[in-house]
Amino acid sequence: MLELLKKLPFWDLLSDDEKQMVSNQAVLRQYQQGNVLHGGCENDSCFGMFYIASGEIRTSILSDEGREITLYRLYDGDMCVLSASCVISQISFDTQMTVTKDAQLLIIPSSTFAKLIDSNIYARCFMYELAAERFSTVMWVMQQILFSRFDQRLAVFLLNEYRKTGIPEIRMTQEQIAQNVNSAREVVARMLKQFAADGLIENRRGVIVLKDIPKLEKLDSK
Amino acid sequence: MLELLKKLPFWDLLSDDEKQMVSNQAVLRQYQQGNVLHGGCENDSCFGMFYIASGEIRTSILSDEGREITLYRLYDGDMCVLSASCVISQISFDTQMTVTKDAQLLIIPSSTFAKLIDSNIYARCFMYELAAERFSTVMWVMQQILFSRFDQRLAVFLLNEYRKTGIPEIRMTQEQIAQNVNSAREVVARMLKQFAADGLIENRRGVIVLKDIPKLEKLDSK
Repeated sequence: MLELLKKLPFWDLLSDDEKQMVSNQAVLRQYQQGNVLHGGCENDSCFGMFYIASGEIRTSILSDEGREITLYRLYDGDMCVLSASCVISQISFDTQMTVTKDAQLLIIPSSTFAKLIDSNIYARCFMYELAAERFSTVMWVMQQILFSRFDQRLAVFLLNEYRKTGIPEIRMTQEQIAQNVNSAREVVARMLKQFAADGLIENRRGVIVLKDIPKLEKLDSK
Repeated sequence: MLELLKKLPFWDLLSDDEKQMVSNQAVLRQYQQGNVLHGGCENDSCFGMFYIASGEIRTSILSDEGREITLYRLYDGDMCVLSASCVISQISFDTQMTVTKDAQLLIIPSSTFAKLIDSNIYARCFMYELAAERFSTVMWVMQQILFSRFDQRLAVFLLNEYRKTGIPEIRMTQEQIAQNVNSAREVVARMLKQFAADGLIENRRGVIVLKDIPKLEKLDSK
C-alpha cells in the first residue's frame, strides 16, 4: 500500500500527519470489467479520488435518456479527481466511470480528500491542475464531436488505437467503437463498410485490420 | 489602478515584491463592442489574464471553417484565465473572446502572469480553480448542445435573460440569440415563430416579449 501511496504526485508535499491520515483511510479495491463507478454525489456520498494501480477506466457523461458521451479513458498510473466532484465546489456536473479492463484502484475517500485539500495547498493545487488537464482533453473531444466529419473521427480513433499497440489490428466490437467515438453502432457499421470498400481496412470477425494507414492518415489531416 | 488590483482575488496573498511587479506590468485598456481578443498563442504571445472592470465578453471556440460555439459570457468583476492559456501547460485549446458590451479590462500580461504563478502557489491555485469553474460551465453548455431538444434550449436562454434583468422583454436580434444558443439564425427564427404561435412569446421589432413564463418554464423542465 505505501508503495502505491508514494506514487501520488503530491505525496512528498504532505506533512507527516497528513500522510498518516491518508494511509489510514485509503483503500485498495478490485473492480471487474463492466463495473460502473458513479462520480456523482447522490446521498452526499461520492466515490472519492482514485489512483489506477492497474486497469482501464472510461469516463463519460449521460443524458437523462441514457445517451452516453465518452470524455476520456484513464490507464495505469492515472489519477481521477472528477470521481470526488462533491468535494470540488467548482465542479457541478456528474460523470460516470466504467471499468473497461479489470482494475485495481487506490481510493482516497471523499471525506479524507476533502480534509487534505483543505489543509494542504499543494494537494489542493494538484487537484485543480488535474481538473484543468481533463478540461483540455474534454474540449478536444467536444471539438471532434461538434466540428469533425464522422469519417475523420473514425479514422482518428482507429489510428490512435494502432499507435497505442503498434499492431494494425483492432480487436473491438462495433458497439465498443461506437461508444468511444460517440456515435451509434449502425453509423460505425456503415462507415467501416465504406472504409473496407475503399481499401482502407478489412473487416474480419471481431477484428478490424488496417490495410492502408497512409490513406487513413490523409483522411485525418483533411 | 491600485483600487482595481485590490479586487484580484489573490491580491492579498501576494508578497510586496509580487504586488510591485504586477502593479508595474498590468495595463488598463478600453475595448469596443465587436472587438475580438484572441486567446490562442500565435507567435508565442497570448493575451494574458484579465479582470473585467466593466463590460461583457463572450468566450467561444471556433472550428476550422469558422463555426462558432459560445462557451460562456463574462461580466463586470469576472476574471479570465483562458486568455492566458499559453502559460497554463495543461490547457491546449484556443478560445476566442468577443467584446459584447464596451469593456474596460485590467490585463496582466502573460509573461508577468507566468512569473507570478511560478513564484506564488496561491495565485497558481487560484488560476487552476478558476479553470475548473469554467470547465463546469462548459460541460453544462455541452450537455445542452448534445442532449437537449432545441425548443428547450431556447426556452432556457430566454428565461435566463429574463431572470438577469427581471424584465420580460429581450432586446436581442435573432442573430445574437443564435450565437448564444449555438444554433443558426434560421433555426432560431423558426422556433420563435412557433413559440409565438403557441402564445409563449410575442415577436416585436427588435424585442421578444415573454407572454407565458410558466409555460416556458414547463418546457424547460420537460
